[in-house]
Amino acid sequence: MGRDADDDGTVVTPSAEFPPLRPDEVDTLGRIGERWRAPRPPDGLPVDPTLDRYRERPTAGRFGRLAPIELFAVPPPQPAGLARAAGELVATEPANLPRSRPARALSRLRRVVLGPPLRSSAVLYERMRKLIALPILSSDLLSSVAYGPEAMLTVLVLAGGGALGLSLPLAGVLVVLMVAVGLSYRQTIPAYPHGAGSYIVASDNLGAMAGLTAAAGLMLDYVLTVAVSVAAGVHAVTSALPGLTPFTVPLGVLVIAVLLAGNLRGVRTAGNIFVLPTYAFVVAVLALLVVGWGRAAGRGFAPVPPPAVPAAEGLGLLLVLRAFASGAVSMTGIEAVSNAVPAFKPTEWRNARTTLGWMVAMLVVLFAGLTVLIHLDGLVPRPEETLLSQLGRLTFPTGPWYALLQAATALILLLAANTAFNDFPRLLFFMARDGHAPRRFLHMGDRLAFSNGLLALSVAAALVFVVFGGHTESLIPLYAVGVFLAFTLSQAGMVVHWRRRPGRGSRRRLALNALGATMSGLVLLTAAAAKFAQGAWLVVVAVPLLVLLFHRIHRHYATLHRALALRPPPVGPAPAEAAEGEELPQQVRHLVVVPVARLNRASLRALAYAASLGQPTLAVHIAPEDVEADRFREQWRAWGSHVRLETIVSPYRAVIGPLAHYLEALHAAGPELTLTVIVPEVVQRRRWHRPLHSRAEQRLRAALRPLPQVVVTSVPVHLTG
Amino acid sequence: MGRDADDDGTVVTPSAEFPPLRPDEVDTLGRIGERWRAPRPPDGLPVDPTLDRYRERPTAGRFGRLAPIELFAVPPPQPAGLARAAGELVATEPANLPRSRPARALSRLRRVVLGPPLRSSAVLYERMRKLIALPILSSDLLSSVAYGPEAMLTVLVLAGGGALGLSLPLAGVLVVLMVAVGLSYRQTIPAYPHGAGSYIVASDNLGAMAGLTAAAGLMLDYVLTVAVSVAAGVHAVTSALPGLTPFTVPLGVLVIAVLLAGNLRGVRTAGNIFVLPTYAFVVAVLALLVVGWGRAAGRGFAPVPPPAVPAAEGLGLLLVLRAFASGAVSMTGIEAVSNAVPAFKPTEWRNARTTLGWMVAMLVVLFAGLTVLIHLDGLVPRPEETLLSQLGRLTFPTGPWYALLQAATALILLLAANTAFNDFPRLLFFMARDGHAPRRFLHMGDRLAFSNGLLALSVAAALVFVVFGGHTESLIPLYAVGVFLAFTLSQAGMVVHWRRRPGRGSRRRLALNALGATMSGLVLLTAAAAKFAQGAWLVVVAVPLLVLLFHRIHRHYATLHRALALRPPPVGPAPAEAAEGEELPQQVRHLVVVPVARLNRASLRALAYAASLGQPTLAVHIAPEDVEADRFREQWRAWGSHVRLETIVSPYRAVIGPLAHYLEALHAAGPELTLTVIVPEVVQRRRWHRPLHSRAEQRLRAALRPLPQVVVTSVPVHLTG
Repeated sequence: MGRDADDDGTVVTPSAEFPPLRPDEVDTLGRIGERWRAPRPPDGLPVDPTLDRYRERPTAGRFGRLAPIELFAVPPPQPAGLARAAGELVATEPANLPRSRPARALSRLRRVVLGPPLRSSAVLYERMRKLIALPILSSDLLSSVAYGPEAMLTVLVLAGGGALGLSLPLAGVLVVLMVAVGLSYRQTIPAYPHGAGSYIVASDNLGAMAGLTAAAGLMLDYVLTVAVSVAAGVHAVTSALPGLTPFTVPLGVLVIAVLLAGNLRGVRTAGNIFVLPTYAFVVAVLALLVVGWGRAAGRGFAPVPPPAVPAAEGLGLLLVLRAFASGAVSMTGIEAVSNAVPAFKPTEWRNARTTLGWMVAMLVVLFAGLTVLIHLDGLVPRPEETLLSQLGRLTFPTGPWYALLQAATALILLLAANTAFNDFPRLLFFMARDGHAPRRFLHMGDRLAFSNGLLALSVAAALVFVVFGGHTESLIPLYAVGVFLAFTLSQAGMVVHWRRRPGRGSRRRLALNALGATMSGLVLLTAAAAKFAQGAWLVVVAVPLLVLLFHRIHRHYATLHRALALRPPPVGPAPAEAAEGEELPQQVRHLVVVPVARLNRASLRALAYAASLGQPTLAVHIAPEDVEADRFREQWRAWGSHVRLETIVSPYRAVIGPLAHYLEALHAAGPELTLTVIVPEVVQRRRWHRPLHSRAEQRLRAALRPLPQVVVTSVPVHLTG
Repeated sequence: MGRDADDDGTVVTPSAEFPPLRPDEVDTLGRIGERWRAPRPPDGLPVDPTLDRYRERPTAGRFGRLAPIELFAVPPPQPAGLARAAGELVATEPANLPRSRPARALSRLRRVVLGPPLRSSAVLYERMRKLIALPILSSDLLSSVAYGPEAMLTVLVLAGGGALGLSLPLAGVLVVLMVAVGLSYRQTIPAYPHGAGSYIVASDNLGAMAGLTAAAGLMLDYVLTVAVSVAAGVHAVTSALPGLTPFTVPLGVLVIAVLLAGNLRGVRTAGNIFVLPTYAFVVAVLALLVVGWGRAAGRGFAPVPPPAVPAAEGLGLLLVLRAFASGAVSMTGIEAVSNAVPAFKPTEWRNARTTLGWMVAMLVVLFAGLTVLIHLDGLVPRPEETLLSQLGRLTFPTGPWYALLQAATALILLLAANTAFNDFPRLLFFMARDGHAPRRFLHMGDRLAFSNGLLALSVAAALVFVVFGGHTESLIPLYAVGVFLAFTLSQAGMVVHWRRRPGRGSRRRLALNALGATMSGLVLLTAAAAKFAQGAWLVVVAVPLLVLLFHRIHRHYATLHRALALRPPPVGPAPAEAAEGEELPQQVRHLVVVPVARLNRASLRALAYAASLGQPTLAVHIAPEDVEADRFREQWRAWGSHVRLETIVSPYRAVIGPLAHYLEALHAAGPELTLTVIVPEVVQRRRWHRPLHSRAEQRLRAALRPLPQVVVTSVPVHLTG
């Protein structure tokens, strides 16, 4: 289950669910095959498995009611002109449709909402241009500018209006941090061209536990990002339209559902939806900066003195650190690009690196510009109005600009959630491939999106949203701990990476990464400590629990992998009994058992099927009392006693228990036997008919499941008469 | 599905789940058997199906971990000394225990609460003596005396105090009605010695619809009896201990659960629990009558004039009829004996008839005695105190007698519910045997009680109780409609019965039944009309709906029965193709299909199992893209290509859909083939591991279920390594 940094282990592919065998496994397979003896060679198949496709085009009506639809096709010839293997068919689109009518209708509706399915071969083309990638990946990062400076000033103002001046040096440090982290990720992207998420970088360089810790932090952060962003966005809407306030929770869930649907459609389409609002926000804030700085230049950059605010706390180191940590939330989302490298158009890493550069540059301009402008205008955080709104009102006293700014802010907050929709499923994909998350997160849905991961994120975020009733003020303190945990581990991992691979410029890179790791670690510690009581403890508790869960999942898959691994057959002539190697056909000794409750069409079908296998067969009847047992034996004789019958009187009227115990006793008497239990299954057409039947077949199956070498065969009987 | 009145169709037997074949069905079976040809005769079984039991006692340790427990035994020799059929074993008690440890613990707990399981042969001995049957079956009937007279007077007093004198003639008419209905049921019991419930009598003589209508009425009444009695009983308790009032709903549910547990233990034990309170109630009321009448005799039976009450309504015919109908609730429960005839000791019908006689006599004495005594003492119904309580306070001014009377009344009201527990499951049993109710109501639990019917009644009554919050005043108006519907249909049925079977005394009996039917019918109409607005409309709506449901269930079972009925094979030599008769082994043509996702231990086991069957075999692999398909074929060749492989590229990455469609296409190409799909099933030991797997096996099974002639075989792979 280990992963090598040198293989193509970071490629996202639809075949990830089918990992190739290692050379030694192929070798074992060959040795098993050498000893394989079927009891008699099958003399051809009674039907052509290629459905006659290779001979000629099938005539209409040939396949009964399926004829008008071409469900399977012969694969097209290879570009090099090589003949394809004969035993291959390609399933066409209709072959994916379910058979039942309601399921078909659902499938069509799904197609209308999500678009037609995409072929696996389309996975390469579903890539993002830089101008599209920028808004998709940066909405989380840039939207933080809407609340980051304010979060910092809100802490500083606790020490009185005079302390607000500290915002300028703190902003300077934060800009250094942003540039350092940005530079650090610039180094990481080419080193991990197939996706440089913190999970992968930390796993590779610091070990699985560090990787899982980073993953747990990121996952919590993604869920919180969606919940918080949606809450903030919905709050902006309900502030404008107070009549909608009682519908906060359904509105939020609706927004999450729309985001889910948009992302299930696939990457490019999702991008198209999100391009405009992000650029609108950037343009609006840039306009704000230009006009604001222009006015400040008009008065010679003389800062307006802020109104006097009484100090609530002394100005200590802890307060400054808390302000720094709060300001650092402006950086959440910076890792989005490095996670999404494979979603870029080729050359992926180069385009990703350029996009990251633009993003960090924009972040620095917006963040620094806003912080300084707030200082110049002498603004103070007020609980009833955001600083951005104050700034907008001051800068654009008239005209539509203020409204536009607020609308763009609300919209980008809603869309910031989308970054999480991009990264969360991809993270789960990588984790699942290493066996740290359920395998189903490997599966690419019919739109080539990781449907299961998207669904998991939506459900988790909606749950958080509903549990907190859309009042996510209490969630914000939890917000930055997870992401800075991941930043720190990722950059520390890069330090190890450069130390292990010395080369041109690796010393400079190591220094950059070390600086970034140290600063991120400081922010992490400050955030965890300063916000511990307000909710950060939840993250501190949840991260180890998640790591434990991932670890347990990994252990289960490892056990499974070992148990299902092929074992070479023993050396020497094929032994008569099953050895510790794989079972071979010539070693299987059959006993077919047919439980018969009453003699009717269904049980005779099962008996006919059993007898037609030509293996030793035994019928078993469970009778509630002697009278019934005698009566049944009489019927059996009337039929002709074609199969040996064993009657078990169950004086306590239980059926499944005695039958299961009897099969177990048979197995104990002949441990080398494979018991095939053949059960007729009457297929109900209507769902409401099911409670009218005893489900004996299902209960028997469940009771027999733990028994070794007991094979259960269901012979369907359809109600047509 | 028809039932003949002359067969033993009214016997309650544990074998009812296994109805015997009709002679023509046995004949068909023989003709099918004549044409039966297995492909090669099995040369003996590889293991002795009697587990060597007939040869010698097994030595310890022979059956592995099961050795210490003798799970199966040889049946004891028949009393006549006849040798038993060799192919029979008897499951001992431990063979009923489930295998898994939590299920075993649950099973033991269940045994502690409900007692050890009872053998089917014990069904004859689990019978009631008359002195035990009387309290069990009469608690419903006699408890009605506690509210019957009051219900009548409450209506009469609406026309003023002067109208109360009408209670004497009305009581006289009711006594006539009681005696008439009692005599009527006395005629019914010997005519239907195996249970003379209204459902059976009405079905037999008036047709299935009348029987179902009676059954629907009775079922509603049983559920209401439980809910109302428990509510009244709990109310009596909470009146004495007001602190318990907030716990009305949980208390009621607890009482229902205790009643359920008592009845699941079985008839005799349940009787023992209920003997004392019923006799205590009878003794207390008799003492009341003796003392009260003695005092009245002391004053020369001069009635005390009742206090003046102003009239609210005029004294019209409708009011008198309403009073009559209200008084008639005293008769609910009179049908209990005739339903329970088979639960009596032999000779059942004679003991039942005697018990019914005693019951009606007691009812008449208590009802008439109380009504006249109330008149003599000049008592008037008051909302804050029951008439019985007023009478007790007046008759026993000092001493413990009053308290004893009230306690016995509360207790018998609680226990009245028990009559419903006796009759409801039995009614469902008869309906299930006719195919009018789900088959599972035929099953006798391990204590020989109809566990499923008891459970259904408890759940329904608890639901009604919870929905109405234990305030069942609003349920009382619904109460009598159902039962008088059943009375009327049952007695009308007996009229038809005597007309069809003229004989000695049949004219007298017909007249008695006709009188009873007419009077019951009048009460029914009066009750339905007078109480329509107060809730009786619910019953008027529910009865036809229930009848429709029973009818639909019957239709489904009839369809099933027809579909599963044996069809004779066509005359002439055995045809090569499947004809419209039953399928025979020589007609089954196999194609074994093994879907293989990856080559590991599990899929190789499935392949080995498939190959060992010696039938034509085809492996199918579904690949998400060409690359993966090529890789898989390479591995297949490395293994040795022992089985023909067909690869299906599914470009939209769905697996189940294309596979199901492919199997359907194969079936269309060879309609005579039986496709056996062999799927490995990895058995998870822990429940929490299940979400980590895709459940492809289950989903495939569900997708294949609608396909004809597609057999699904699960080869279990247990995780041991």
